[in-house]
Amino acid sequence: MAPAGAKRNILERLDAGEIVIGDGGFVFALEKRGYVKAGPWTPEAAAEHPDAVRQLHREFLRAGSNVMQTFTFYASDDKLENRGHTQRFTGQQINEAACDLAREVADEGDALVAGGVSQTPSFLSCKSEEDVKAIFKKQTDIYIQRNVDFLIAEYFEHVEEAEWAVQVLKTSGKPVAASLCIGPEGDLSGVRPGDCAVRLVKAGADIVGVNCHFDPETCVKTVKLMKEGVEKAGLKAHYMSQPLAYHTPDCNRQGFIDLPEFPFGLEPRILTRWDMQKYARDAYNAGIRYIGGCCGFEPYHIRALSEELATERGFLPAGSEKHGSWGSGLMMHTKPWVRARARREYWEKLRPASGRPLCPSMSTPDSWGVTKGHADLMQQKEATSKEQLEALFEKTRQGC
Amino acid sequence: MAPAGAKRNILERLDAGEIVIGDGGFVFALEKRGYVKAGPWTPEAAAEHPDAVRQLHREFLRAGSNVMQTFTFYASDDKLENRGHTQRFTGQQINEAACDLAREVADEGDALVAGGVSQTPSFLSCKSEEDVKAIFKKQTDIYIQRNVDFLIAEYFEHVEEAEWAVQVLKTSGKPVAASLCIGPEGDLSGVRPGDCAVRLVKAGADIVGVNCHFDPETCVKTVKLMKEGVEKAGLKAHYMSQPLAYHTPDCNRQGFIDLPEFPFGLEPRILTRWDMQKYARDAYNAGIRYIGGCCGFEPYHIRALSEELATERGFLPAGSEKHGSWGSGLMMHTKPWVRARARREYWEKLRPASGRPLCPSMSTPDSWGVTKGHADLMQQKEATSKEQLEALFEKTRQGC
Amino acid sequence: MAPAGAKRNILERLDAGEIVIGDGGFVFALEKRGYVKAGPWTPEAAAEHPDAVRQLHREFLRAGSNVMQTFTFYASDDKLENRGHTQRFTGQQINEAACDLAREVADEGDALVAGGVSQTPSFLSCKSEEDVKAIFKKQTDIYIQRNVDFLIAEYFEHVEEAEWAVQVLKTSGKPVAASLCIGPEGDLSGVRPGDCAVRLVKAGADIVGVNCHFDPETCVKTVKLMKEGVEKAGLKAHYMSQPLAYHTPDCNRQGFIDLPEFPFGLEPRILTRWDMQKYARDAYNAGIRYIGGCCGFEPYHIRALSEELATERGFLPAGSEKHGSWGSGLMMHTKPWVRARARREYWEKLRPASGRPLCPSMSTPDSWGVTKGHADLMQQKEATSKEQLEALFEKTRQGC
Amino acid sequence: MAPAGAKRNILERLDAGEIVIGDGGFVFALEKRGYVKAGPWTPEAAAEHPDAVRQLHREFLRAGSNVMQTFTFYASDDKLENRGHTQRFTGQQINEAACDLAREVADEGDALVAGGVSQTPSFLSCKSEEDVKAIFKKQTDIYIQRNVDFLIAEYFEHVEEAEWAVQVLKTSGKPVAASLCIGPEGDLSGVRPGDCAVRLVKAGADIVGVNCHFDPETCVKTVKLMKEGVEKAGLKAHYMSQPLAYHTPDCNRQGFIDLPEFPFGLEPRILTRWDMQKYARDAYNAGIRYIGGCCGFEPYHIRALSEELATERGFLPAGSEKHGSWGSGLMMHTKPWVRARARREYWEKLRPASGRPLCPSMSTPDSWGVTKGHADLMQQKEATSKEQLEALFEKTRQGC
Repeated sequence: MAPAGAKRNILERLDAGEIVIGDGGFVFALEKRGYVKAGPWTPEAAAEHPDAVRQLHREFLRAGSNVMQTFTFYASDDKLENRGHTQRFTGQQINEAACDLAREVADEGDALVAGGVSQTPSFLSCKSEEDVKAIFKKQTDIYIQRNVDFLIAEYFEHVEEAEWAVQVLKTSGKPVAASLCIGPEGDLSGVRPGDCAVRLVKAGADIVGVNCHFDPETCVKTVKLMKEGVEKAGLKAHYMSQPLAYHTPDCNRQGFIDLPEFPFGLEPRILTRWDMQKYARDAYNAGIRYIGGCCGFEPYHIRALSEELATERGFLPAGSEKHGSWGSGLMMHTKPWVRARARREYWEKLRPASGRPLCPSMSTPDSWGVTKGHADLMQQKEATSKEQLEALFEKTRQGC
Repeated sequence: MAPAGAKRNILERLDAGEIVIGDGGFVFALEKRGYVKAGPWTPEAAAEHPDAVRQLHREFLRAGSNVMQTFTFYASDDKLENRGHTQRFTGQQINEAACDLAREVADEGDALVAGGVSQTPSFLSCKSEEDVKAIFKKQTDIYIQRNVDFLIAEYFEHVEEAEWAVQVLKTSGKPVAASLCIGPEGDLSGVRPGDCAVRLVKAGADIVGVNCHFDPETCVKTVKLMKEGVEKAGLKAHYMSQPLAYHTPDCNRQGFIDLPEFPFGLEPRILTRWDMQKYARDAYNAGIRYIGGCCGFEPYHIRALSEELATERGFLPAGSEKHGSWGSGLMMHTKPWVRARARREYWEKLRPASGRPLCPSMSTPDSWGVTKGHADLMQQKEATSKEQLEALFEKTRQGC
Repeated sequence: MAPAGAKRNILERLDAGEIVIGDGGFVFALEKRGYVKAGPWTPEAAAEHPDAVRQLHREFLRAGSNVMQTFTFYASDDKLENRGHTQRFTGQQINEAACDLAREVADEGDALVAGGVSQTPSFLSCKSEEDVKAIFKKQTDIYIQRNVDFLIAEYFEHVEEAEWAVQVLKTSGKPVAASLCIGPEGDLSGVRPGDCAVRLVKAGADIVGVNCHFDPETCVKTVKLMKEGVEKAGLKAHYMSQPLAYHTPDCNRQGFIDLPEFPFGLEPRILTRWDMQKYARDAYNAGIRYIGGCCGFEPYHIRALSEELATERGFLPAGSEKHGSWGSGLMMHTKPWVRARARREYWEKLRPASGRPLCPSMSTPDSWGVTKGHADLMQQKEATSKEQLEALFEKTRQGC
Repeated sequence: MAPAGAKRNILERLDAGEIVIGDGGFVFALEKRGYVKAGPWTPEAAAEHPDAVRQLHREFLRAGSNVMQTFTFYASDDKLENRGHTQRFTGQQINEAACDLAREVADEGDALVAGGVSQTPSFLSCKSEEDVKAIFKKQTDIYIQRNVDFLIAEYFEHVEEAEWAVQVLKTSGKPVAASLCIGPEGDLSGVRPGDCAVRLVKAGADIVGVNCHFDPETCVKTVKLMKEGVEKAGLKAHYMSQPLAYHTPDCNRQGFIDLPEFPFGLEPRILTRWDMQKYARDAYNAGIRYIGGCCGFEPYHIRALSEELATERGFLPAGSEKHGSWGSGLMMHTKPWVRARARREYWEKLRPASGRPLCPSMSTPDSWGVTKGHADLMQQKEATSKEQLEALFEKTRQGC
């Protein structure tokens, strides 16, 4: 493999019109494997169970990913301290371990390392711009010290906080991507996607887009609105999308967090590999060139993106040695009626059944409609008390 | 950790009334991770990508599994040669590597190693009892040589072939389990579950049950019928179930292979962790004590079995350090309406939506109704020809 | 039109191999029109609103019905007095008015008049055979006096009570049909369909079958079992089916009464005209020659039966002047994409959507599992008390 | 009953803040009864089968309707001549008979007679304003001569044609209502609901709103937009809604015509009486005071509107003698678990199952996107030719 320094950086690739395949989300994948706790969603596994994290990096690399994001989601100190969570590792230890794992695997193939920051409890609790930026600075310093290839400000519900993050990341001199977790209705303060994108570009982002919170269809639609906004403003940018691997036609502005199935009943919504190929094509057609995934993505989902765009990229990923395009591997199946499924037409037209005749196809999301600054969202170091929980349970029982 | 020799064997555990938690299916889990090819479904990854296989073993161990099954599904020589598939590794190499990986991880915890044999293309092609037994013998010799803890004859559609397998495995002197892939209607020759079980016990099986092909509800129902048959015959046995992690209320006798979604569109059918807790309880109440999983199971599914039966077993699995029972980890969530989901009542009653309003809840399975001996099922070393495929496509197009 | 006396009777028709098209259920159709009260389900409209009843008879006649059943369902005196219901009309007045209306319309076309008796609260309350038969005798006397063409004992959950009814009806000297409201599992005492049918034939029934409680698919399946039983016993009979116009794949032995949607939320289950054509064909293929409907049938449903069997009968019903077979009337539609639906293939393959993404496709029926003789089912003249209702509500609230 | 002249007219009622309950659609209801042909949808039954039409009027009156619309939908001469349809009756005969029937029944209760005109094939074929107005004039003359109480211009997809209709109707000196068949996206020329409403009021309409094409939820939403537009323009009007009785969450701008289920597979979409009560409440809360229905409405649907608004109106309709509010009639039911459904909470929360596990919950509408002036929509007197149909079938087959 070529040394890291020899690789073209993210902007060289995008400027040349190449497709950059992202990776999938680590917290959900590792939760299923037993290394991340749903609720806190913190990434201590980077330090605690490095083998498990390294293996997941390798699977995404093998599936065709060009980016290894450091497993540092929610690894800011204020988040690690939030709501009574205690750690065996410091934030610094986790961030450093995550950088080393990402670099190790990136160097086994054609991938870049991206360090990331995401929204903070401090912002929701109305801390000052200075306080919030100090949190971003702390993580950024580690990324600079560990020499990641570029930086991502991702998973922001409010464009204002994302701007602050971009401004901090920009001081590194590295390329900066900015990705909000918003849908077509815009951010939680009501700023439209087009306006969000313009503000992020003006703050210094080279790549703008969305991640998490919505399904591919919704995310592509949102990025299109961003692109229209940027172009209308006479600016230039590259575009990225890293959606959920869950169908979410029933979401409101807050995204999948508000669905009753979040986070332990989302299984029936998981996208198939064919849904993913459709997503890759739609994103490509929309002018998006950094195409990856977030929560719910498994390695085979990323491989499906790589396979759909194999012609444009000029190659199949290593992982396709174990996958026949459009189901052609089934030609080897014992039963002839299964061999008959070895064709594109079959899988493209399939409307897969849920096997759940007692369940509906859509849900009504929770809609509390509160956001930054609301008392219910204030940061709280101690665990939620029994009384607080009972009050919550009662409140929701009446609604259901 | 105690040395392998020091562990109580599978029968000592079951005789003592203990619960034995099995592992999940490797071919589906590793297909999603990029190491197994759907269609051939062969386990060359044991030799080719041992890190990936070892990691999956560890995740199941961490989730509470007491059994590490060698990753040797379809690793008989006749299967490896079937339909034009060529390998970089011999059957022996694969089988040996799989034994070593299972032993390595089993010795990291309280787990036993189980070597397995499964149904053969030779049987379907009407080869003689002698020929078929020779195939089982070859794998069994490796398991004896590698000193596995017990043996499983699993995934048989015809009880006759399973009897042959049990007879061969029994020569090892080790405990033998026998597991058919049948539902309440019985095997593909029309033998009822109760009669199947009696025949397997008489052939020498210590543990009988079912695996694969059907969802937990159907499998528990089938094992109940087996148990009734064995008891009515005045015999004794232990019982096991290792079902799919897919809801299959719409299956006919052939199981999930015949569902139109098999194998690349099964996502909406994946069981939640709460479905799994229900399964564990139902299996336990039915008198089943060897409770595991098959295709579709991820480590968190096995962990759910361990959590449901934690009181009976007296402990939680290691992996529960990253999981709050009944969603209690959500008490740490930022949004109060998500914290309100941190309770058993919420998750037990949830009817999760598919997010697929254009899809049905059930499918009509293919129903060719052919089995052993039919020309369409004869073993064929060369790949299916283009003409054979076109004929198949045409045949099914008219039906759909 | 020919005088009533000149018409061939029901047995002459069936003996000649002809198809007899029944009518649809009156209580549900007239409930929707505002003339029957759900709950009591009594037929006082025959006396109270004769125009409305006459109009419905005419619509069924026009749709091709060969039978006008007198609108006398639940018109036994013990039923009319049950649970606090008071009437402006005596049972005799209602029964006589119903006979006159049926005769008037039957004489406008090629239809026979059938008088019916159905299960009694007295039987459920364990009254004697003598008492129950006296109730049937009272209605039968009116039918004899009004000279109906044949008699039907219909809507019986227990074959024993149906035998008593047949024995009474048989004394009239008129042809007798007997129709249970059971499914493939048999009657509520556990008697299998085949055995039920044999007992009814031995009691004197010329025609046996099922009505109400289940969808067409289930009813045809049940009548097949009846036919097998009768033939195995070396007996002879004609067969009838008059199912619901509601899809009920989720029913248990008690039928649609136990579905949570009964009776005010059944709309999404209503059969289309194409479902009805399939029913007519399936019933015909099963050897059923008296083919009609029960609750939920509207005139266009009966017309669909007549259209499906037009070739076998040799004619279309009068109502088909307003219906193009298989949607051909759409050739006249303004929009070309609607004209494109004017073909059999389109409607046969259509899988109609519910337009209800928040609703499931199947329900879990109530399953109290009580029947004849249970305290909860005892006849009670006074209305259910407030305390009785509150106890019931509480009981069911806990279950849901 | 009071003589017609003694009744307060529609505007007196609405000006006084009273609720006016409309009737339901006749073409769909009479199609199910066998008197209207789907495709042409013409109202010759008024002359051909007056008993059937009178009976339906009476059922709506009994359900609480304050308006008897003359059954004259599509009774313009150009429509009656369209696409090869031939009639035994002239347009004049049909229109006159319909007026007489409506008047006869209206005089049996507290209802007004409304004469209606609707969109014409001539407009779609780009005939001149003069030609189109002449068609409206011809029907209007009959309504004046028969002395209806007020006039409705209804079922217009283009506001321009509706304005022409209003202008003609206005010459009668009678109150005029105008009702488009549009959704929130506006008319087929892209005019927004608010702007449509303003134009109709300026053309002379006293009452504006929508009918047909969409479900109640969508219609109420659309009328709200109309109301906002009218109020923003500083104008005044009364508001009406007469939606479908079918759930149509999946419709595009063209409405239910484009759903694959139209018109012969809509059954699973039919609203329950509880859905109707919700509609009545929502409409009332939105400031709509003329609340009725269109295609799919049966008398019990209108009764449900009357029952929901009984407190506001001060009385229950006559038909409620056969209906217990919120299911209270079930207190008389034989089975105790059915008696337990005799309460509002039960029916309000029920999510009724479709009984169709192989069907989806939503459809993809046809979207040809053509309208007025397109060659495919030109008026054609002769029936569609076989070649035209074959071309259409082929075109749509490829799409499905």
